[in-house]
Amino acid sequence: MEKSRWIWYPGDYEIYHSIKLHSRREEYGAEYPCFWGMANVYPRVNFEKNASFERDGYLIIHANCKCYVLLDGRRYPRGERIAVPAGNHNIQVVTIKYDGLPAIYCESDQLISDRSWKCSPGTSFRDVNAGDEPAYTSLNDNVEVFPFEYTVVEPVSVEKTSGGTLYDFGRELFAKLDFGCESGLTAYYGETVEEATDTANTLIFEKVGAGEHSLVPRAFRYVLLTGEASGVKAELELVHEEQIAKFSCDRPEVEKIFDVCAYTFHLNSREFLLDGIKRDRWCWSGDAYQSYMVNDYLFADRALNRRTITALYGKPPVLEHINTINDYSALLIIGTWEYYFTTGDIDFIRFIYPRAKALYDFIVSRLDENGLVVSRPGDWIFIDWSDIDKDGPLCAEQILLWQAHNAMAWLTEAVGGAKSDVDLCNKRADSLKALINEKYWDNEKQAFIDSFTSGRRHVTRHAAIFAILYDFVDKKTADLLVEKVLENDSITKITTPYFELYELMALCKLGHIEYAQNMIDSYWGGMLKLGATSIWEQYDPTQSGAEHYGMYGMRYGKSLCHAWGSGPVYLLGRYCVGVRPTSVGTKTFEVAPRPGLYRSFDAVVPVGTRPDGKPGSVHVAYDGRSLRALADIPGGTLVWEGREYELVPGVETKID
Amino acid sequence: MEKSRWIWYPGDYEIYHSIKLHSRREEYGAEYPCFWGMANVYPRVNFEKNASFERDGYLIIHANCKCYVLLDGRRYPRGERIAVPAGNHNIQVVTIKYDGLPAIYCESDQLISDRSWKCSPGTSFRDVNAGDEPAYTSLNDNVEVFPFEYTVVEPVSVEKTSGGTLYDFGRELFAKLDFGCESGLTAYYGETVEEATDTANTLIFEKVGAGEHSLVPRAFRYVLLTGEASGVKAELELVHEEQIAKFSCDRPEVEKIFDVCAYTFHLNSREFLLDGIKRDRWCWSGDAYQSYMVNDYLFADRALNRRTITALYGKPPVLEHINTINDYSALLIIGTWEYYFTTGDIDFIRFIYPRAKALYDFIVSRLDENGLVVSRPGDWIFIDWSDIDKDGPLCAEQILLWQAHNAMAWLTEAVGGAKSDVDLCNKRADSLKALINEKYWDNEKQAFIDSFTSGRRHVTRHAAIFAILYDFVDKKTADLLVEKVLENDSITKITTPYFELYELMALCKLGHIEYAQNMIDSYWGGMLKLGATSIWEQYDPTQSGAEHYGMYGMRYGKSLCHAWGSGPVYLLGRYCVGVRPTSVGTKTFEVAPRPGLYRSFDAVVPVGTRPDGKPGSVHVAYDGRSLRALADIPGGTLVWEGREYELVPGVETKID
Repeated sequence: MEKSRWIWYPGDYEIYHSIKLHSRREEYGAEYPCFWGMANVYPRVNFEKNASFERDGYLIIHANCKCYVLLDGRRYPRGERIAVPAGNHNIQVVTIKYDGLPAIYCESDQLISDRSWKCSPGTSFRDVNAGDEPAYTSLNDNVEVFPFEYTVVEPVSVEKTSGGTLYDFGRELFAKLDFGCESGLTAYYGETVEEATDTANTLIFEKVGAGEHSLVPRAFRYVLLTGEASGVKAELELVHEEQIAKFSCDRPEVEKIFDVCAYTFHLNSREFLLDGIKRDRWCWSGDAYQSYMVNDYLFADRALNRRTITALYGKPPVLEHINTINDYSALLIIGTWEYYFTTGDIDFIRFIYPRAKALYDFIVSRLDENGLVVSRPGDWIFIDWSDIDKDGPLCAEQILLWQAHNAMAWLTEAVGGAKSDVDLCNKRADSLKALINEKYWDNEKQAFIDSFTSGRRHVTRHAAIFAILYDFVDKKTADLLVEKVLENDSITKITTPYFELYELMALCKLGHIEYAQNMIDSYWGGMLKLGATSIWEQYDPTQSGAEHYGMYGMRYGKSLCHAWGSGPVYLLGRYCVGVRPTSVGTKTFEVAPRPGLYRSFDAVVPVGTRPDGKPGSVHVAYDGRSLRALADIPGGTLVWEGREYELVPGVETKID
Repeated sequence: MEKSRWIWYPGDYEIYHSIKLHSRREEYGAEYPCFWGMANVYPRVNFEKNASFERDGYLIIHANCKCYVLLDGRRYPRGERIAVPAGNHNIQVVTIKYDGLPAIYCESDQLISDRSWKCSPGTSFRDVNAGDEPAYTSLNDNVEVFPFEYTVVEPVSVEKTSGGTLYDFGRELFAKLDFGCESGLTAYYGETVEEATDTANTLIFEKVGAGEHSLVPRAFRYVLLTGEASGVKAELELVHEEQIAKFSCDRPEVEKIFDVCAYTFHLNSREFLLDGIKRDRWCWSGDAYQSYMVNDYLFADRALNRRTITALYGKPPVLEHINTINDYSALLIIGTWEYYFTTGDIDFIRFIYPRAKALYDFIVSRLDENGLVVSRPGDWIFIDWSDIDKDGPLCAEQILLWQAHNAMAWLTEAVGGAKSDVDLCNKRADSLKALINEKYWDNEKQAFIDSFTSGRRHVTRHAAIFAILYDFVDKKTADLLVEKVLENDSITKITTPYFELYELMALCKLGHIEYAQNMIDSYWGGMLKLGATSIWEQYDPTQSGAEHYGMYGMRYGKSLCHAWGSGPVYLLGRYCVGVRPTSVGTKTFEVAPRPGLYRSFDAVVPVGTRPDGKPGSVHVAYDGRSLRALADIPGGTLVWEGREYELVPGVETKID
């Protein structure tokens, strides 16, 4: 018998922890909750299980809240040992909680609680399976506490300064700070020495009284304590992850970059995929969308993507766009489809589909009479921080909407939805495509213009990038867009690392891997040369010293450990090693290496799922002459110099 | 300047306290939460106020949760004194709470927080006004604690028994029990001596250890403590109410009955209008519907009705019927209309309308193809505990639905809704009426049959009663229904006090006041003769001794303090004194006394609203020869012996 797990209404665990997470941001000593709306958990949940007892036995239902148990319709209290005769039984549990997440746990000689139990937010509708997590298998576990792992990190140096004592922990951490002090002091946190010691401008600090302290976890490498303290140490707080991906090549700095990207990503892989650990610590759908990809090519932690997607959707009714941003709603639906395409996890898709549909319906309800995304009150037409002509409907938004229509059609098919629903999505996609080509394609510029209402015929890179990524255009047009837009220096450059990843993806997709490899050297390598132990939110090589640390008008406003900085993990696995699923659930996949500037490389890339449920992987090594590939799951095809080779699991394919 | 109040998202205060309330039921030492689904509060709420400062001043925003303040777009922490220059300003407050009801409080020399602030469950949509309550005007107030008042009640007798010490508090209470004990003991609660001392069957008890105790409030008159205790007292927990209604007549026992009804009702008038204080302590829409009426004729505490209606609606999406009962959904919508008709409180109707509409749409979505209420999975077709033929669509349900269509049409008109929406409700009502008359009217029996599908042509009183009450039939048919159904002893008698009130209302409405007066003597007077200090859930004069206390298969399962027992307050005010609103908001009202069996009476009945916002009232005295009436609000018409007299506020009208 497996171990019992605490169970709850599916999705409410994510919603509960998302509310907690989004409560925790702080700046300059002040609280800073997220500004968008959030769903809440169901306070009243019923659980039900039809169970067969092979012999006389017992069960005890435990709960973290008020509850009663019905065994075959007879009522019992929680915590009471209930005799269960051999035979078939119906067990129902009625729970209520006004201050958190209602959850129950079944103790029995013959029955466990797990996601096979049904549950309902009311009396009937027991047609959904409960949620559970492998971390909560003990009666003493608290589902309202997220199961992080903690590792003690001692400071690598301690230095007296004019303002107090400066502790350097050697690398970026997200950690509790533990110490004792006999009188009050202030702890100033810094991702850099400057931030920790320039106390008039430190973003994160806490004033404490005398006593033993274990402060709430925060991002830092350095801490300045303004008074005497003893036993100063950090407790690094991480979600347990197994890093599957590896990458090294003839340029040693690339492996270093890859590893720092991986560490950066790990620090940001928490309850959900976060943007950055110092400042927002929020879950942004755009950032998360890129992180799904990095995760797929690093840990392949499916549960992390699921938690993030679930938290972002929240629960109907949909009151506003995800994070209030129109494009982020579309990216969530697209990301849901990509999750399914990668994993084939139909159970999750069946669970999340009604929420995706509610968001999709919300999107559609706010289109204009032509089916175009426009800005409605409360909307944030974001796309990117850039010089975009946002007059009227914006081209890049429409291309995302087009892909969201497609994604919704595919998801509806996947869950066996009505053909009329699928057709409706496809019809919307088709007529939107025609309209985009009619309204935004500029024959003279050979590019999509941002806006057809302003008359300015302004071109930015964003629409071209999405058009290439989502196959909105054919290969010929895509190549044309590279020539006329992406390689055109007169078009405003992408300045955010967020959109830079999309641009690099588009270029790599069309074969321009060298561009990305050079960028990894200059941009990511540039940060490491400055001593970075994690990848920054943004890096501008023209800046120097503490200039690098400012952003959003704050001297240390920049996050120096930002998830989207981990893009090279994805770029190298996806385009240099060339691994990608080619059918739903990665039943088939392609390995089409493109060494580009690298004369040799040795890489492991997660792909698909092994029979034991763990992520599969493919090991690819290229030494300049021969190519070797070894996958541990079936369905792989190696593509090399125009030829295809079947990858047999466990059998190395070597091509000289 | 008024005092600041704590403010929250409107309706969430009621939802929060409803979750808490519905967590508190207990039986035989076990928890017993309600079984229907409940909405939760919004965890993320924005507040906004545009304020004009006449001179330089300040404000401090306090919150019971994480929050920040934006003054003209600039961010400040909560609890910080913010200088505000003279002039116009925009103030926004962003809050988040994962374990309760987010609320804020503004401290300022020139600005208060109150329901004039706008709020939103997300970023935009700041088009609803915040909620507040007059009880929370101090910074130290906790909105998560309901503002009850407490009165110490000492036992009137203390008696050693074989099982311990029995304390009699002289009357039914809902109270905390306070005492100290030097070793552990058990407190057994009883509404009767039998219940407190028959400890093997006591419904409510608590085992405590040594120490000073103040136990959670419960219903009782008697307490048996099984060990030595000191300082035993009760703290009666009540909502402050001012009893406006009075009634006395030539039969002294009627005044006593009236007062016991009023006390019973007061004990059940808490966060919301409860069914009974001992057992369920839940908020049932059917019970509440009757309590709205009693409240209107006793305290006229509008806020109590509003809180109850708000808690019952919860928040969309609607997942199941109110309390899972189809008829209770209809009664909630009808009750909402009656609240508006009585009070004219359009602010509340504007707030609640979208929730009423969501429930109405849910009701309509579950009708059959002919627009009839049928039982869908999860539905509970209740109407009454009686011998009703529930095969197929049930007649009484359809009449309630018909009135719900009407109520929705009237409410939609009141909030200025689309004419097409009003028309749709009216059209549904009209075609339903035709269908009811076609399918259920039995010309031979001259009555409505329960079911047209079973072929049994069974008649119960329920459809007839609703048909009379909601003017579904004309006066002639109504009189016929009295003759053929209500006065027909071969038709199964109503056995529940719940439906008995409807029956008495129907009879009184058609002039049969004497029937109700006799019933007050026998049924209510019967309980008082047995020593009742509050009115029971049910009374059967053929029972004796402790037989009276059993119900639902439990020896002390009956509630001896049940709200629906307070019906005489309504019956006497509404039909004997004859006070009723005749237009929306009681802009006009009628006083049509019908002394019936009473040779004289002296009564005060709440009616309408005075200019100071407090309930108005009318004093009516009849001494067998002359009739005197004095109202303190305009709009009244005295109807006496076929003639009408205008009631001038403050001027006594005397008719000899």
